[in-house]
Amino acid sequence: MTGSAGDLCLGIDLGGTKIALAIVDDEGRVHAERRVETAAAAGAETVIAAMVEAGRALLAGARVPVLGIGVGVAGQVDAVDGVVRSTPNLAGWHDVPLAARLADALGLATVLTNDVHAVALAEQAHGAGRGSGHMAVVFVGTGVGGGVVSGGRLIDGAHGYGGELGHMTLVAGGRPCTCGARGCLEAYVGGWAIALRAQEAVARNPEAGRALVREAGTAEQITAATVDRAAEAGDPLAVELAAETGRLLGHGLVSVVHAFNPRRLVLGGGVIEGMPALVSMAADVVRDQAMAVFLEDLEIVPAELGREAGVVGAACLVRRWARGRARGGTTMAESPATSSEE
Amino acid sequence: MTGSAGDLCLGIDLGGTKIALAIVDDEGRVHAERRVETAAAAGAETVIAAMVEAGRALLAGARVPVLGIGVGVAGQVDAVDGVVRSTPNLAGWHDVPLAARLADALGLATVLTNDVHAVALAEQAHGAGRGSGHMAVVFVGTGVGGGVVSGGRLIDGAHGYGGELGHMTLVAGGRPCTCGARGCLEAYVGGWAIALRAQEAVARNPEAGRALVREAGTAEQITAATVDRAAEAGDPLAVELAAETGRLLGHGLVSVVHAFNPRRLVLGGGVIEGMPALVSMAADVVRDQAMAVFLEDLEIVPAELGREAGVVGAACLVRRWARGRARGGTTMAESPATSSEE
Repeated sequence: MTGSAGDLCLGIDLGGTKIALAIVDDEGRVHAERRVETAAAAGAETVIAAMVEAGRALLAGARVPVLGIGVGVAGQVDAVDGVVRSTPNLAGWHDVPLAARLADALGLATVLTNDVHAVALAEQAHGAGRGSGHMAVVFVGTGVGGGVVSGGRLIDGAHGYGGELGHMTLVAGGRPCTCGARGCLEAYVGGWAIALRAQEAVARNPEAGRALVREAGTAEQITAATVDRAAEAGDPLAVELAAETGRLLGHGLVSVVHAFNPRRLVLGGGVIEGMPALVSMAADVVRDQAMAVFLEDLEIVPAELGREAGVVGAACLVRRWARGRARGGTTMAESPATSSEE
Repeated sequence: MTGSAGDLCLGIDLGGTKIALAIVDDEGRVHAERRVETAAAAGAETVIAAMVEAGRALLAGARVPVLGIGVGVAGQVDAVDGVVRSTPNLAGWHDVPLAARLADALGLATVLTNDVHAVALAEQAHGAGRGSGHMAVVFVGTGVGGGVVSGGRLIDGAHGYGGELGHMTLVAGGRPCTCGARGCLEAYVGGWAIALRAQEAVARNPEAGRALVREAGTAEQITAATVDRAAEAGDPLAVELAAETGRLLGHGLVSVVHAFNPRRLVLGGGVIEGMPALVSMAADVVRDQAMAVFLEDLEIVPAELGREAGVVGAACLVRRWARGRARGGTTMAESPATSSEE
């Protein structure tokens, strides 16, 4: 396990609906991959068994030894202990020692991280954050996730939970969020929140909402994608909802800029892909609101890596860990997933 | 310059009204100090001359060689280049190469940082953050500043401007802030903002505001300290303003907790000292709002070091830099003040 160029790693992206697994080289190229459904309702044991089976098949096909396994999980992951603490998409996953389970079953060192932390590592190594040691990723899908690299290191805090940029406060005491708090960024710009804001706008003004209802079928079926399509077709209410989303996202990004002073801010996820104009709308707000010195060499750009970012980033994670070990560290302090009290 | 135990550093805290300078040892003890007025209106040259004169006098009295000079400045400091970019309290200070000026005049390596970053280093090394590699400091004075240590390192971002926790968004599009943005944490809980909120409350309800006006003299003279005193005396409006301040501060701290996953959150500054109950009020909101896993070993505590924190932290900064150099680094990557694109 020396982490030399050309070494392969197994990256796994565990989501609520599917598990992606890939053998990835150190230039971020995927050599082989598998995607399997996440049998979320069947519980952790079934899901782990499916990961092990797919992982074993991929490892058997690798022509050179594989360094280790990196796993990105949508949720709060104790990166130090390798334990999935909780995840909104996988009911019943509480304190699952996933790293140990995979390491035992597959015979390789395994490190865990949050899924958007993995994306941040991938975008930094091979995508929109290439060459920048100071970058932040905000992923706007159904939920809103984040990952921050500062001074070349993943900022994940005491346990690995840090970088939860979607749950920074956007409006103190504002709209209720799925996390239990009020006023989180996610509660305004996450896909579920855009849908809810649109449904509320339609209820307030059914006349203005006719195009949205027609597009969705019923008012209750309006989603963020409905808003995208109606906005693209020029529907005034949808255009207004999109503009408001861009403005609110921008105010959220001001927090990220002032907290981390990144050089690159990378926006990705399904909502951004569905409505790419959100990037420039949010960037306008950041340029208007953030302090001038923070803006001088800040670039706000879309993510580049698409759906492979999760597995590539998970592979980056374990590669970094293995390299840290190979450099002779007796602690895991070199691993972005294993920062601990120093 | 080996940075061995017992070495001394010169720490300087440059504020808008005074300059504190101290010879500090590696246990954070102040061996000698000077405080001089900041002749802010006289311009940068006059202020620098005063710093040089006071620094020279302290250095002349040191019994062992001094490693270097650390300077904390209230404002945006380019830590990489050692330049003061802008500062709200020192009119006309734009792009002042303070590190080079002091290094030339005093013959010692000089590193700059933001004043609350210096406080964070001091509290981490010798105060309320002792022993914690993951801590954040929020300083609530007239303005609101921040400093974050993560994985043992100061998080200051691409140029050193990061950790501006007072200018994270608290209410998107909300109250105007002195920084030019809207809705910053500072625009609600900074001393100037508390005063403004109190004055507005009194204007809305003069009857309820009688005690505040009596305490201050006139409505326009109401300050945060007026609110402190009236709240302590049990005036209902002042108590309500204080409670609202605690609640808003708490919502702001939720952002800090989710962004950085600190183990210790240290609150200091004049507003906190004037109204110590804000610490527990804000902590209650954090415990109510932040995700459970972030709270498990989070402590929210008052700062310990008082007015010496700035000079002690500035000394910590240059000590770290010197130790990084002594370990043979060819870059300044070991210095918290000089992180750069990696």
